[in-house]
Amino acid sequence: MKNMKTGGTRTCRMCRDRGLKKRAVVHLRHHRLSLCEEHFLIWFERRIERTIKEFKMIEPGEKVLVAVSGGKDSIALWYVLDKLGYETGGLYIDMGIGEGSGGYSSLSKNVCGGFADKIGRPLHIVSVEKEFGKPLPLLMEHTGRPACSLCSTIKRYYMNRAAKEYGYDVVATGHNLDDEAAVLLGNTVNWEVEYLRRQYPVLPGGDGFVKKVKPMCKVTEKESALYMLLKGIDYVREECPYSVGATTIKNKELLIEMEEKSPGFRIRFYTSFLKKMYPVLATLSKTTDISGGHGHGSHAPLSRCKICGEPSSADVCPVCRLRYKTGAQN
Amino acid sequence: MKNMKTGGTRTCRMCRDRGLKKRAVVHLRHHRLSLCEEHFLIWFERRIERTIKEFKMIEPGEKVLVAVSGGKDSIALWYVLDKLGYETGGLYIDMGIGEGSGGYSSLSKNVCGGFADKIGRPLHIVSVEKEFGKPLPLLMEHTGRPACSLCSTIKRYYMNRAAKEYGYDVVATGHNLDDEAAVLLGNTVNWEVEYLRRQYPVLPGGDGFVKKVKPMCKVTEKESALYMLLKGIDYVREECPYSVGATTIKNKELLIEMEEKSPGFRIRFYTSFLKKMYPVLATLSKTTDISGGHGHGSHAPLSRCKICGEPSSADVCPVCRLRYKTGAQN
Repeated sequence: MKNMKTGGTRTCRMCRDRGLKKRAVVHLRHHRLSLCEEHFLIWFERRIERTIKEFKMIEPGEKVLVAVSGGKDSIALWYVLDKLGYETGGLYIDMGIGEGSGGYSSLSKNVCGGFADKIGRPLHIVSVEKEFGKPLPLLMEHTGRPACSLCSTIKRYYMNRAAKEYGYDVVATGHNLDDEAAVLLGNTVNWEVEYLRRQYPVLPGGDGFVKKVKPMCKVTEKESALYMLLKGIDYVREECPYSVGATTIKNKELLIEMEEKSPGFRIRFYTSFLKKMYPVLATLSKTTDISGGHGHGSHAPLSRCKICGEPSSADVCPVCRLRYKTGAQN
Repeated sequence: MKNMKTGGTRTCRMCRDRGLKKRAVVHLRHHRLSLCEEHFLIWFERRIERTIKEFKMIEPGEKVLVAVSGGKDSIALWYVLDKLGYETGGLYIDMGIGEGSGGYSSLSKNVCGGFADKIGRPLHIVSVEKEFGKPLPLLMEHTGRPACSLCSTIKRYYMNRAAKEYGYDVVATGHNLDDEAAVLLGNTVNWEVEYLRRQYPVLPGGDGFVKKVKPMCKVTEKESALYMLLKGIDYVREECPYSVGATTIKNKELLIEMEEKSPGFRIRFYTSFLKKMYPVLATLSKTTDISGGHGHGSHAPLSRCKICGEPSSADVCPVCRLRYKTGAQN
């Protein structure tokens, strides 16, 4: 908790600016900012609101589908988007991880359902077991593919497809600063130029893709945990059992060390990439043909999957291939 | 010494490839390579030779001026270039650091002079005190500028000028992998695109500039120390007294930590930048005008200094301005 201490004996800066003296509940070291409970909540919501505006993530009147896992980030995102007045719905993709009603996926689904009821918004659910005839653990066994690879293929597909089916204009995910900086670090240490070119918190829609946005990209994991704590909103505290040892987690640990040596490292690293390097790579993508993928301002010339009609670089998209492999094809 | 252990009970791989069994003196963890004394020396020299060829650093017949500080890297470089058959001379820029004959600069100058005699090559000496009327410590006092800023301005100028005056085609410096990776890390964490665009081990000549090369860019500090140790060549072990706390040193420490977590990190980070990101930035420099500086394949449209005639982006170059300030102008 080095970068977010309790306020200690500090006073809230926003209260001080108003001539008041109120004890801070939190000190955001990387922003050199101490805040009381009331002003931390305001600060957090405004930060998301400003990120949405800065990157033109959501236009007025657009309907937003929030991809929720039940964790603090996606639930906080849904809560804040709803509070900011956007017309929202949730999407829960049930991977079927963990057995019975106490398992990881069941627990997560219940939390998402409970939250949807609380704010009175619809929750759409996709069941992997229904779609493929098997939950994720059996899909892993059947295909020999690792959990994260299957999960990301499935999520990417159904987020896009569900948004179109249910009439949403934008898909919003809860990726926070820790996530984005860790992915950026991973792409940087090996100089994966193709991935760096696509690392932007907005992927525009078009060619069968719905716009995808990451409004939490400038708040840290700990900030969203504190927001949830202060708001008293329930969320799933367990991490996905398959996430242990993932490269992104190692990169997150490395970033935490760098942050300790140099407070503000993560936010500087990420935002200066977006300001200084990303525009250079984006220019490049328009003039040269080192293309591919669903990049900002640079759709690869995609065809459509011959089975489901979704955008795909191959004749049959990865999800239809998976359905075929598992014997679940239509 | 985590990345370069003594050989322990390992045997030399090159001996093994020849059907022999000889105990290794060193284990290069980042290359997964154990070598005996004889084969380490061969490996080290070949690595430099290959780097020169890979980046087309020195063409046959070109005369090389080696910028020597008296430290292990520049002396090892001079030794190896001489051994590889290049026509070389040394350049020592005497900053006048430390008092009397036992001071840092005097000691370094003597080591360079002794080495030049040993290999029978000329050593050219530039004295900052003669050029500016004051040694570096007094220049710092007089100008209020930090040591590293003055030193790099002075070195860059005199390396180029001396090479032309004494008839050399190339200036070679002893920057090693640790140096280059640390500078790269520093430029990456803040995404200094302009600096990244110029981070290449060859800066071509032209427009008043002599070609500059870094043939040691793929050997580590410890490898060159071991080479000097095994060869029994004398060098200055002291670090420059002004280098304490420099950012590059902090970045080197960070890289050492990353190297411990992931052996080979430094070499991968640096070489994959050269292979994957540098070409992208170089393309950019040819097509767009985010120019400036003495970049690879991209000379900024420089004019000449009105006083000394050296290339300069201003009417009067930084060194002539310094000479003017200190009252040492011609």
